[in-house]
Amino acid sequence: MQNKFEELKKRIAEVSAINSASAVLGWDQQVNMPPGGAEARAASLSALEELSHSKFAAPETGRLIDSLYGWAQGLGADSFEAGYLRAVRRDYEKAVKLPPEFVGEFSRATSEAINAWTKARGDSDFKAFAPHLQRILDLNLRKAGILGYKASPYDALLDLYEPGATKARLEPLFKKLAAGLAPLIKEIAARAGSVSSDLVRGGFDEAAQFGLVNEIVEALGYDFSRGRQDRSAHPFTTDFSAGDVRITTRTERDWLPAALYGSVHECGHALYGQGTPREFDFTPLAGGASLGVHESQSRFWENIVGRSLPFCAWLLPLLRKRFPGRFDKASPEELYAAVNRSAPSLIRVEADEVTYNLHILLRYEAETSLLEGRLKVADAPEFWNARMKELFGIVPARDSEGILQDIHWSLGAIGYFPTYTLGNLISAQLAEKMDKDLPGWRGLPARGEFAPILGWLRKHVHVHGRKYLPDELLMKELGSGARVEPFLEYVKAKYSGLYGF
Amino acid sequence: MQNKFEELKKRIAEVSAINSASAVLGWDQQVNMPPGGAEARAASLSALEELSHSKFAAPETGRLIDSLYGWAQGLGADSFEAGYLRAVRRDYEKAVKLPPEFVGEFSRATSEAINAWTKARGDSDFKAFAPHLQRILDLNLRKAGILGYKASPYDALLDLYEPGATKARLEPLFKKLAAGLAPLIKEIAARAGSVSSDLVRGGFDEAAQFGLVNEIVEALGYDFSRGRQDRSAHPFTTDFSAGDVRITTRTERDWLPAALYGSVHECGHALYGQGTPREFDFTPLAGGASLGVHESQSRFWENIVGRSLPFCAWLLPLLRKRFPGRFDKASPEELYAAVNRSAPSLIRVEADEVTYNLHILLRYEAETSLLEGRLKVADAPEFWNARMKELFGIVPARDSEGILQDIHWSLGAIGYFPTYTLGNLISAQLAEKMDKDLPGWRGLPARGEFAPILGWLRKHVHVHGRKYLPDELLMKELGSGARVEPFLEYVKAKYSGLYGF
Repeated sequence: MQNKFEELKKRIAEVSAINSASAVLGWDQQVNMPPGGAEARAASLSALEELSHSKFAAPETGRLIDSLYGWAQGLGADSFEAGYLRAVRRDYEKAVKLPPEFVGEFSRATSEAINAWTKARGDSDFKAFAPHLQRILDLNLRKAGILGYKASPYDALLDLYEPGATKARLEPLFKKLAAGLAPLIKEIAARAGSVSSDLVRGGFDEAAQFGLVNEIVEALGYDFSRGRQDRSAHPFTTDFSAGDVRITTRTERDWLPAALYGSVHECGHALYGQGTPREFDFTPLAGGASLGVHESQSRFWENIVGRSLPFCAWLLPLLRKRFPGRFDKASPEELYAAVNRSAPSLIRVEADEVTYNLHILLRYEAETSLLEGRLKVADAPEFWNARMKELFGIVPARDSEGILQDIHWSLGAIGYFPTYTLGNLISAQLAEKMDKDLPGWRGLPARGEFAPILGWLRKHVHVHGRKYLPDELLMKELGSGARVEPFLEYVKAKYSGLYGF
Repeated sequence: MQNKFEELKKRIAEVSAINSASAVLGWDQQVNMPPGGAEARAASLSALEELSHSKFAAPETGRLIDSLYGWAQGLGADSFEAGYLRAVRRDYEKAVKLPPEFVGEFSRATSEAINAWTKARGDSDFKAFAPHLQRILDLNLRKAGILGYKASPYDALLDLYEPGATKARLEPLFKKLAAGLAPLIKEIAARAGSVSSDLVRGGFDEAAQFGLVNEIVEALGYDFSRGRQDRSAHPFTTDFSAGDVRITTRTERDWLPAALYGSVHECGHALYGQGTPREFDFTPLAGGASLGVHESQSRFWENIVGRSLPFCAWLLPLLRKRFPGRFDKASPEELYAAVNRSAPSLIRVEADEVTYNLHILLRYEAETSLLEGRLKVADAPEFWNARMKELFGIVPARDSEGILQDIHWSLGAIGYFPTYTLGNLISAQLAEKMDKDLPGWRGLPARGEFAPILGWLRKHVHVHGRKYLPDELLMKELGSGARVEPFLEYVKAKYSGLYGF
């Protein structure tokens, strides 16, 4: 069996080596590539994808998995071999279910949809995007049918991003969230003028910003000998192996939080990647348990650590050094208030901690209704705007600031958005557990002591890689699946303090 | 037949897409990669290499070539199809001759040799490198035997870098060169103090240097929408397609020519790559006719254009702008002298136009003697030093500045060095032909007019890509193969003027 396992590992390592190469090409595409390189790059990426798929989905892979699965589980559910076989079997079953012709059709449809969306958003012309959205929905329905589901086709899609998640389990979470956040938003709206973000707005030298965020992520524990930070239009994190996990950020001259919290967010993802055990490299155990768990790491560092008062106390002298004169009179409390101001907004990616999950709720409602045929594509903008009014009391003047703002649907991703909210919920659960295991940890950032916090995450989250399904991981380490209460308590405590209610 | 040709083209395009991906990984490795990424990168590169080779060397490729070759040649020797089939057949025959086990052994030997050479050069310890050099020589002998040759095994190796070149044809070229250069070197030595390079030495801001070389390559015609320039330890050019041809440079604070002429040199290579017809992308016709012809482009721009008096006249105001105060009193003539100073030197890459080819001669003599068993590895340093004394009148104090200075042999490359000299010779032949076709072109750089020069090279060299063997290309465009006279006349005229003899 050991020989067969070595054979499987060799095969998967080759597939992973190809996928790692694709990731390098993707990174380069967003960070460095001149416009003239686009055509050849698309060809290279598509060739690598095909090679990776055909090697992975080969019958021989399936035969090896079948012959090894029982043996591996017999070595103990927590063993490397058992986790390896569980993960690779899950991936293999998904890979062989989708016929190559369907994958090709899906890929062509999304390429066209991305172009159409880009143009439609520019023109704020939903009608031009509508047929593409319809096609994406139809293809996703077919995909769900091929993959299989019990209650809703949405479950099959969710499972691609958050294995094990279902609509039936999300529904009560969103309900509780909405109910808990509504009064909070009301209280904040009544005191809208009491918190200002002027301190972090307007005229920050961009080279100084980039220097600052490099200093910050290094302090948090990001290892520059196993990664690098660059600039790109949309910040992202990408792993080539645990030895090369790269992040990007985006500086905005007039809005310091863009780079500041963009970097801390991506750093959170990257610490997860750099924390994956090296023996997981080029195995199906590399990477995070799910998008939701990955997002729990980025949001933990961005919000729970990065937007805390102790962090602001540590940050203030760094800001004074990088932007002479700008922060001389500011106190940590003022900085804390400035980076936590809450206000209803049209754009998801600019939303604060209180309102963010309602943006996700809206998208969740829209995409489930569309997929299940309860909402027609033509009526979607109206639905969007009506819910914006109910949730936030504001309505976008144009669809480019409304239903056309996100790229996800044009990428073919239906069922992706909920992972953002799951990440927010889990981040608060992690903090709650850390309160028990590491008393006083919330004050450590004031002294720039991030190592104990990172150490806890390494031990309880990072070390597992993809060994467990998200819910298995949460049960094992936190004693329950995703819960709303810790998050609601956290934002309530934080915002009642900030806004004085 | 057209269908079969499409089938072959599709197959080769896939191989090229993989190779293009490998090139991206190689570029990233030298420009961006953090140390932690090395292991995964090696695995990715080796996986891609294997995939590319197995797809290309598959019997099906050979069958398609066999069935199409005659048909393609029937369409006319200059047709796309005929050139395509000639190039792909040449590549295929080489690819299938070498057994995978041999390729693996060669690759392991060179990996080990590179490590050994790096350490041996650091310690200036030839003995530590000697067994690796012996192994490289043995493997190259076996390789030559597998590839086949008529007169000398060296011919089979030469052919890898310069298709069609043979020792019998190089020998008289080197002899004439050595005879022609010897008196020149003597004359210069007698006036050694009369030309100084102080003007371009000492304390140039490196950011300003980088700005300068970006400005220069753009002026020469390098298209930044189809490429980019970065910094790396060793400058190089790499093509992912004609739409993405990247160059790197190296700034040295105390030696302006490192970045200045490093960039112009790589730009020369890149203009060739960017000038390849787009329909050659992902075909065997992409790339240069040979290393020698490629080098003719880089040396043409670096030396014949870049180290000319008119170029210096154009460059001077740019230098004044980038380095305020430094060049206020300098004349174009002084700059021209400073960048053309000739002196015997130990290090090939620092050599001037007069002495450079003698460095190559020395390596050519050493590697042919070693390969043919006329020189023992243990005696090679002695041989090296004795020839240095004869050719330049100087002897390296240590092997790190002598026989250990170049990486080529440790990379497994025997027969590569002569392409540098061929490039120098051909660059002078191109200039000679340009004198006829484009009278007055030598003065154009003074006004920053590089487009007509680039246009000529595009039309007579770049447009052909790899369609012709180097000698076919030279016969077609210049009426003869590589010749020594134009180069000798060029350096004689230039240096007698500079040194006044």
